[in-house]
Amino acid sequence: MTEPFTVEEYTARIRRAAESARAAGLAGLVVTPGPDLVYLTGYQPTAVTERLTALLVTPNADPLLVVPRLERPDAERAAGAGALRMADWADGDNPYRLPAERLDPQGRYGISDSAWAMHLLGLQQELPDSRYRSLTEALPMLRAVKDAGELDRLAAAGAAADAAYEEILEMRFAGRTEREVAADLAALLLAHGHSQVDFTVVGSGPNGANPHHEADDRRIEPGDTVVLDFGGLKHGYGSDTTRTVHVSADGSVPDQVREVHEVVRRAQQAAFEAVRPGIACQEVDRVARAVITEAGYGEYFIHRTGHGIGVTTHEPPYMVEGEQLPLVPGMCFSIEPGIYLPGRFGVRIEDIVTVTGDGGRRFNNTPRELATVS
Amino acid sequence: MTEPFTVEEYTARIRRAAESARAAGLAGLVVTPGPDLVYLTGYQPTAVTERLTALLVTPNADPLLVVPRLERPDAERAAGAGALRMADWADGDNPYRLPAERLDPQGRYGISDSAWAMHLLGLQQELPDSRYRSLTEALPMLRAVKDAGELDRLAAAGAAADAAYEEILEMRFAGRTEREVAADLAALLLAHGHSQVDFTVVGSGPNGANPHHEADDRRIEPGDTVVLDFGGLKHGYGSDTTRTVHVSADGSVPDQVREVHEVVRRAQQAAFEAVRPGIACQEVDRVARAVITEAGYGEYFIHRTGHGIGVTTHEPPYMVEGEQLPLVPGMCFSIEPGIYLPGRFGVRIEDIVTVTGDGGRRFNNTPRELATVS
Repeated sequence: MTEPFTVEEYTARIRRAAESARAAGLAGLVVTPGPDLVYLTGYQPTAVTERLTALLVTPNADPLLVVPRLERPDAERAAGAGALRMADWADGDNPYRLPAERLDPQGRYGISDSAWAMHLLGLQQELPDSRYRSLTEALPMLRAVKDAGELDRLAAAGAAADAAYEEILEMRFAGRTEREVAADLAALLLAHGHSQVDFTVVGSGPNGANPHHEADDRRIEPGDTVVLDFGGLKHGYGSDTTRTVHVSADGSVPDQVREVHEVVRRAQQAAFEAVRPGIACQEVDRVARAVITEAGYGEYFIHRTGHGIGVTTHEPPYMVEGEQLPLVPGMCFSIEPGIYLPGRFGVRIEDIVTVTGDGGRRFNNTPRELATVS
Repeated sequence: MTEPFTVEEYTARIRRAAESARAAGLAGLVVTPGPDLVYLTGYQPTAVTERLTALLVTPNADPLLVVPRLERPDAERAAGAGALRMADWADGDNPYRLPAERLDPQGRYGISDSAWAMHLLGLQQELPDSRYRSLTEALPMLRAVKDAGELDRLAAAGAAADAAYEEILEMRFAGRTEREVAADLAALLLAHGHSQVDFTVVGSGPNGANPHHEADDRRIEPGDTVVLDFGGLKHGYGSDTTRTVHVSADGSVPDQVREVHEVVRRAQQAAFEAVRPGIACQEVDRVARAVITEAGYGEYFIHRTGHGIGVTTHEPPYMVEGEQLPLVPGMCFSIEPGIYLPGRFGVRIEDIVTVTGDGGRRFNNTPRELATVS
């Protein structure tokens, strides 16, 4: 399960990408460093610089990876290197000449969302009649639908995050800073096999009411409600889970905290139960939002309900109003409604969920009831 | 010297950017997260996601920072927040509507090099007659020419890297892995006030012949030549220096190592002495390359001679054939020629240099003669 993907697997992915591109009316794909390139080739440059690296997927030709000459030895060591040809360019060359020779001057191409604007402008200048669309917009299902090997890895990452959560519950919160608890969470993720920690949000008291708060020097006190949102990569696939706990020596919890937490729990559960093939992504958001709105907290649920996950911890598709992409078996995403009461506290509950043949399956399975910590 | 920049300083930078844009025939600038935004506002989002953040600099209007609503509290805490207005958009909104309302539909704009292609495509779709150029191409001097406060910070970062180098010379190399020495270098940079370590290259023996090698589990042995290239950020500004050492208990060094090292040292010295206002960037490369070529090693100097440095450790302008941008007082860049003998060893010597009124000044001042280590 934790073996690297094989050249055959990368070849199959590239072929599927090429077929999807053709079906979408595209002449091919321009894939730059980041999750698309990792997915299709296993290659991730040590640092993404202004030097152009691009995988060109075009009909009737082998996939071609254009790389800076200096970085070619690194690229040749990538797990999927055997699935492609390489061509390099040297400092001082025009890096867009190789793509320009390969691409159809009138073609429409999908280009990685995070490709540098300067590279897109370079292609547009070299081939003024070529046209581009963001890869996610053009081929929304390409990375969104996971195969069996990917689902295994996502399940393992989720189980590791769950184990980290179970252990953090046993640790002390009161009297320590958010940063200290965050460091413990990071260490636990690594101890449970993560190679990379992407975020460890510890939002205590009023800090929990800012959904993008990370962790600072605020000292956690008895009576604080604390949002714990953490994740990273294990064997190249992402984890991301949130639980909200209450700091209480005797297990007592103020009524409003209990009430708000229960609303979020019901919203998250309802959204999970709504998951099945064929419904639109926005439906997941609507179901969660309806529960929170009916309970009178609609204005305090200030973000979308979820995001995709795969070779990154945060990617399309998004569970958001307006996203009409249908759920398909193998899709994986977060369901993470929340309520944020400015200046007071926040509550969020998040699981990674995959779409099955007839519903959904969670990769996070720790209790969603409000836990108290010491 | 280590105080954050003031709102007045950010205001002055934005004004200078706006004037430069107008002088370059642009209707304004679209600045996305990364070094341009740090330079102009001090703001760096915790994570760069697909959510659009963009500073719009346009004539006859206050600079406007478009931010995702969730990230607005973070943006409002940025050191330069007082220099701009903010407008936010919520999940589910069209993020390009705010820029489209503000930008001239027929305007030509400079856009950050590393802006996501999906955002550029979003702007191009919303305003089909708008035109874009990469910010570096359009305004190459904007961040390249440093002011006094920036030069102070770069000098301090260089001095810290020098101190790290002096201390690593006292440590043991033989019998330890590259990774262990790299960890020491990182710890030394942090001990000398760096907030962030960007790279710690330890290229021993044949690994030194790959200029993009970082550090691996190779155990360093007596007789190895070792390239040490390290840097990061101190008070928000970069360090980057390289020295090549030889592992030798008795101070003996093989003749060819000594010869190659001396060629690189002379090349680096010649390039440094060539620095003065008005010469083209490519001239710095040519001078270094001529020394190496005359010595018969031209084919083994396989990269450009240098790169700019500022709020990042690696940025334009590049000291490379074809770069005709003139040196101007206040520019800061690396001079780092090297010779790489495949399968054997590599040598590189690198200093950060700033252009003065009549020449150059180094921010790295450790001895450039070949040092031996134990």
